[in-house]
Amino acid sequence: MSAHHFFVDETQIAGGVVTIGGDEAHHARVLRVREGERITVADGTGRVLDAVVTDNTHDFVADVLAERQLAMPEPSITLFQALTKGDKLELVVEKATEVGVRTVVPFIAERTIVRWDERKLERARERLQAIARASAKQSRSAFVPTVESFSDQASVRVEPTLVLHEEATERMRAALPSDVPAELALVVGPEGGLSPGEVEGLVASGGRAVTLGDRILRTETAGPVAVAVVGYAYGWFG
Amino acid sequence: MSAHHFFVDETQIAGGVVTIGGDEAHHARVLRVREGERITVADGTGRVLDAVVTDNTHDFVADVLAERQLAMPEPSITLFQALTKGDKLELVVEKATEVGVRTVVPFIAERTIVRWDERKLERARERLQAIARASAKQSRSAFVPTVESFSDQASVRVEPTLVLHEEATERMRAALPSDVPAELALVVGPEGGLSPGEVEGLVASGGRAVTLGDRILRTETAGPVAVAVVGYAYGWFG
Repeated sequence: MSAHHFFVDETQIAGGVVTIGGDEAHHARVLRVREGERITVADGTGRVLDAVVTDNTHDFVADVLAERQLAMPEPSITLFQALTKGDKLELVVEKATEVGVRTVVPFIAERTIVRWDERKLERARERLQAIARASAKQSRSAFVPTVESFSDQASVRVEPTLVLHEEATERMRAALPSDVPAELALVVGPEGGLSPGEVEGLVASGGRAVTLGDRILRTETAGPVAVAVVGYAYGWFG
Repeated sequence: MSAHHFFVDETQIAGGVVTIGGDEAHHARVLRVREGERITVADGTGRVLDAVVTDNTHDFVADVLAERQLAMPEPSITLFQALTKGDKLELVVEKATEVGVRTVVPFIAERTIVRWDERKLERARERLQAIARASAKQSRSAFVPTVESFSDQASVRVEPTLVLHEEATERMRAALPSDVPAELALVVGPEGGLSPGEVEGLVASGGRAVTLGDRILRTETAGPVAVAVVGYAYGWFG
């Protein structure tokens, strides 16, 4: 069984000692982590520590044994994922986290069928953030992706923004810059796809409509596999 | 709403007329496909027909309107997937089908926890084959992947056979031949991973142990994303 994996802020590591507090300490308590147990700790910047627990009475305190630097995935990928029926968004966040997404922005697309009020959306965001954290732990990732609040539409924040659209003629591979960009965004529509107006709006703002090929993917599949493919193209995955 | 998609054998297309029988006719009946309705039909070789239904009284008969030839994914990918807990195998078959797997061989790994008798395994195979068919329809694929009977171990049938193993030092990208191979196999272990003995046995038979990178993937994620990445490397996907 591999060591349990925890996340801390950089400020929680000092003088060869890491202090795990808050939710992560709660999680360590649930897992019954003991004094003398080996754990791994990531600080969100790529640094991963092997450590041994010296105190579990309140916060968890551990002595650092070794330190590695993992490459952070570049580009930093933001996935705009349309709200879909059922628990598909949970699957998307779990799987996109496994393959290295940095930020997820759930949004309400024109063809999103589900109608939730603000309170339900915020509860959903919290649940998705918890899923991202759990999935990052299981993947022994260097960082926890951020799940942002639900947006009322996808938007073009960075260049390139690739809008996955089954009717697009340009393949995704053709739209990936040859030099590694610092950031890259992917937009994935709901079950019924993005509307022509949504695609046009994103393209008018600088987005590029692209297809992953002949095959038609379910909405919950497109985001994670597109993240994996971008990771392959830029070398960190596969 | 796109046209419904059906699968036939080559022999069911003759003289500009396609005849849909058996399970696919049953499915068309369930979908209440009417005379005059446009459908698409794939014959498993890459040929996809646009057609219009002329008779739905028993078998479904349709006149061919247009014909396209889709590229069949090369290499033809066989995914050896270890039996896992819960319904994860169903998710693997559904998602691997979406991204273009040709054959799935479920197998009982040393660390597979589930113990099923022959009858239960055969029922599971039938259910997985039905999921592959449904997923291929939804993806408007040129073919339906084959789900073989459960095997008592993974084996090396083709070159290359890539054994996904988190402790491997070689990256998958380094093991992909530069010329497109006709076939390629991927082996994915259960929740606890393949045993050292299983990995050694596969490598001794000519398999190559490879990793997808630093990130640790759940068993149900590894197969589909590896298929997508192979598709990207050889051009049909992404």
